[in-house]
Amino acid sequence: MTSSLTVGQLAERLGAELVGKPDGTIERAAPLETASEGEVSFLARRKYLRYLGATRATAVIVDREMGRLEDFPQSTALLWVDDAHAALAETLTLLYPQAPRDGEIAPSAMLGPGVELGEGVIIGHHAVVAAGTRLGDRVRVGANCVVGERCEIGADTELKDLVCLYPDTVIGARCIVHSGARIGVDGFGYVFQDNRHRKIPQVGRCVVEDDVEIGANTCIDRGSVGETRIGAGTKIDNLVHIAHNVRIGRQCIIVAQVGIAGSTTVGDGVALAGQVGIIGHLDVGDGAKVAAQAGVSHDIPAGETWFGYPARPLTKVMRASAAFLKLPELIRRVRRIEKKLEVDDDS
Amino acid sequence: MTSSLTVGQLAERLGAELVGKPDGTIERAAPLETASEGEVSFLARRKYLRYLGATRATAVIVDREMGRLEDFPQSTALLWVDDAHAALAETLTLLYPQAPRDGEIAPSAMLGPGVELGEGVIIGHHAVVAAGTRLGDRVRVGANCVVGERCEIGADTELKDLVCLYPDTVIGARCIVHSGARIGVDGFGYVFQDNRHRKIPQVGRCVVEDDVEIGANTCIDRGSVGETRIGAGTKIDNLVHIAHNVRIGRQCIIVAQVGIAGSTTVGDGVALAGQVGIIGHLDVGDGAKVAAQAGVSHDIPAGETWFGYPARPLTKVMRASAAFLKLPELIRRVRRIEKKLEVDDDS
Amino acid sequence: MTSSLTVGQLAERLGAELVGKPDGTIERAAPLETASEGEVSFLARRKYLRYLGATRATAVIVDREMGRLEDFPQSTALLWVDDAHAALAETLTLLYPQAPRDGEIAPSAMLGPGVELGEGVIIGHHAVVAAGTRLGDRVRVGANCVVGERCEIGADTELKDLVCLYPDTVIGARCIVHSGARIGVDGFGYVFQDNRHRKIPQVGRCVVEDDVEIGANTCIDRGSVGETRIGAGTKIDNLVHIAHNVRIGRQCIIVAQVGIAGSTTVGDGVALAGQVGIIGHLDVGDGAKVAAQAGVSHDIPAGETWFGYPARPLTKVMRASAAFLKLPELIRRVRRIEKKLEVDDDS
Repeated sequence: MTSSLTVGQLAERLGAELVGKPDGTIERAAPLETASEGEVSFLARRKYLRYLGATRATAVIVDREMGRLEDFPQSTALLWVDDAHAALAETLTLLYPQAPRDGEIAPSAMLGPGVELGEGVIIGHHAVVAAGTRLGDRVRVGANCVVGERCEIGADTELKDLVCLYPDTVIGARCIVHSGARIGVDGFGYVFQDNRHRKIPQVGRCVVEDDVEIGANTCIDRGSVGETRIGAGTKIDNLVHIAHNVRIGRQCIIVAQVGIAGSTTVGDGVALAGQVGIIGHLDVGDGAKVAAQAGVSHDIPAGETWFGYPARPLTKVMRASAAFLKLPELIRRVRRIEKKLEVDDDS
Repeated sequence: MTSSLTVGQLAERLGAELVGKPDGTIERAAPLETASEGEVSFLARRKYLRYLGATRATAVIVDREMGRLEDFPQSTALLWVDDAHAALAETLTLLYPQAPRDGEIAPSAMLGPGVELGEGVIIGHHAVVAAGTRLGDRVRVGANCVVGERCEIGADTELKDLVCLYPDTVIGARCIVHSGARIGVDGFGYVFQDNRHRKIPQVGRCVVEDDVEIGANTCIDRGSVGETRIGAGTKIDNLVHIAHNVRIGRQCIIVAQVGIAGSTTVGDGVALAGQVGIIGHLDVGDGAKVAAQAGVSHDIPAGETWFGYPARPLTKVMRASAAFLKLPELIRRVRRIEKKLEVDDDS
Repeated sequence: MTSSLTVGQLAERLGAELVGKPDGTIERAAPLETASEGEVSFLARRKYLRYLGATRATAVIVDREMGRLEDFPQSTALLWVDDAHAALAETLTLLYPQAPRDGEIAPSAMLGPGVELGEGVIIGHHAVVAAGTRLGDRVRVGANCVVGERCEIGADTELKDLVCLYPDTVIGARCIVHSGARIGVDGFGYVFQDNRHRKIPQVGRCVVEDDVEIGANTCIDRGSVGETRIGAGTKIDNLVHIAHNVRIGRQCIIVAQVGIAGSTTVGDGVALAGQVGIIGHLDVGDGAKVAAQAGVSHDIPAGETWFGYPARPLTKVMRASAAFLKLPELIRRVRRIEKKLEVDDDS
């Protein structure tokens, strides 16, 4: 299941500066505190420095930011790199290569009329692929997935198990869609008439561009009469909600449990931290950052970092937030002044 | 898949005032900025007025609130209406009629003993309908759904794909339950005994009345010893959590990622915006509105609009919230006064 | 489906003090306001006292905290207990015994090579259990579940319908995993290189210890290179997100829609209320409590109760929060003082 290489080979592949012996063999990766012989670990945060002295890892990838370290076991080699996370990604790709899988359509899978399959497509047990859908080369559809009518899925994209694509959904190449994601769902649109909410038919579609990853149980609505669109390279975590007609740019990071209301536009390279909410019909500019749990109710200019509820530029809110706990004391101070000046406090 | 009609016919159906030629043909709907010949679009917000001048739509439905408009292409007809969203709903219903589908039970579907089926019932591939469940006329059960024992589903209700109803769940007529919704789940009830959490058996049920729509991946718990109930006509968005014994009234709007804790009662016509949280054992009165992300920890009287965390009546919070950013400056001002009066600020 | 017993027998089993006749028969449980003859109800909160006078329940379990009650129907027996919730749990366990089910593997279930099954295992329709997975005695796998390669599930654990375990997931004994839960999902880890987010392979696993309950549509990520771990006896509600490398202690309570970011450690006996968010790499001490919707961005010492956004110790925040609404008035008061002292307010 895994490959192996020597400490020296790994150092060479990473362009790392090696301190220690180059001849140990590395077969797996593990955290500092639980690693044993044959395993490589990494150190990218000072907080975890305390585990270095006792680690049994054969080698440890260390971020140069840590500075020179003395306290590590003789049996452990250190690999100094400029970016420990990048080096870790590279190491894991070397140690845990994706097994090539032969294309196979499970006999229990149901394919509708007119389904087109590229080369090497894999379809899992009990999956359903409805009429008119096209799957590119090497697409993998997990067990018990349901892919609606007239969907298009680009080459090398993987749907994990139990995913649902509503009809007419388009997914680009090299995407990963995690278990339980629902894409192209009817948007939440009603008009109140005759004392009841009448559904506005949701006749648009959802387009996910190339290289997007979509987390488990995340829901993305289709357009009402146009598109909902997720830009290329954007990564979306678990349990996120993206409403109808939202447009997300390229290379965004959208952390778990974020919610984005209808028709809002998010630029390129935006980062939304966990549990952020954004109301509808707003513009979030390129490169903007929004802190966890913030509630956004105004447009955010490009490049700014916002925070709070309601969200405002970070610097402004931080000072007010720090002052917040002094509020009861401040009221006492004002009262004392009023007393001294004999001003009535409830006029 | 779609019907078509002329601009004149559409104007007549909508009771709209027509400016422009009545003889264009309309086949689909599209947003202003991407619409082309043969498509109808709509304009209900000033923000999107900028797209009108260049639209290639054959006709545009315009809300009278927009006022008289001059800047639109000669080839485009305008249809003035009192409520553009209502007119859009009507237009989409005309253009995209739901295809009638013949009743069919997929051969791979599993039906338990004693299942009763109305006329024209459709059951998708690999769906499971357990013993003693009754499905009304024209009920549609999507692919890979699991419907537990002794459920009842009313006529014309649709379960999209991969839905799960726990045993004893009751769903009314004309409901739509989106993919991944879980209804009748065990409530979160424990008693702490002998240093462990002991589960309180959840033996109640969940009742969803007529004309309810339930969003993708939404979870609704069953009653602990009574019912959880969702009132007729209420619409629930994606990823909402509704705990055991909650009672929701009729014609409510519950936006994505709302959470309502156990035994809380929500009246008729209530609107809860996205990511609102409500703690348990509260009463939210008829017609109340709660702003996005608010955290409700007190009863809300009928008709009021609440906001904030902890949530309070909107008007009160708005003023305090506006004053919040002035807090650091206010502290400086008080310090200056104290200096002038020679009052010690830490007494 | 249910058992029955007399009021006297129930009183004896609960060690309750009985007021009223011991000979009524009890067959089911129901809430005070809807209970009828043959049903037992309970009263644990003053709020519901108003329903006692008119109840038709044969017996009512009453918490001693309610004090002596006079207003109840002659036909109703009262059972006084020290802890009504514990007594209710016991009563429901007596009235609604879990039907023993014979082990059966549905013919439509798919088992991969090398799957090991304990005695009495039940596997539902269309479930998939992949190669190398081991299921302990009496494990129940619901319909349309997908259990990945090399998973281990302990004795007496139940996966409800449509659950997904990613490969290498370990679940202990006597756990309940609700419908739509996703366990062992890839964590959300990327490194930004060459202007794109490159995925860090997620090669760890997720370990759930004994006696854990996991709510519907909850997502728990696998470790990146180590473990994500949920301690024994911990209970997790619906729609919760737990990121990679998080460690949750024993006997915790994690309410619906909570989100915990990567590498955070939560001690034993911690209670996180609904919609709480915790950022990554923090420590939450044993026995800590966090109020609903709080946003935690600092370590929480053991035993403390925190509240707010950003979260801080409850007592501090409560006073500041109460003062918050007085802020506009406070600004007016300071302005008046400044006027009187002839201080310029914008210097």
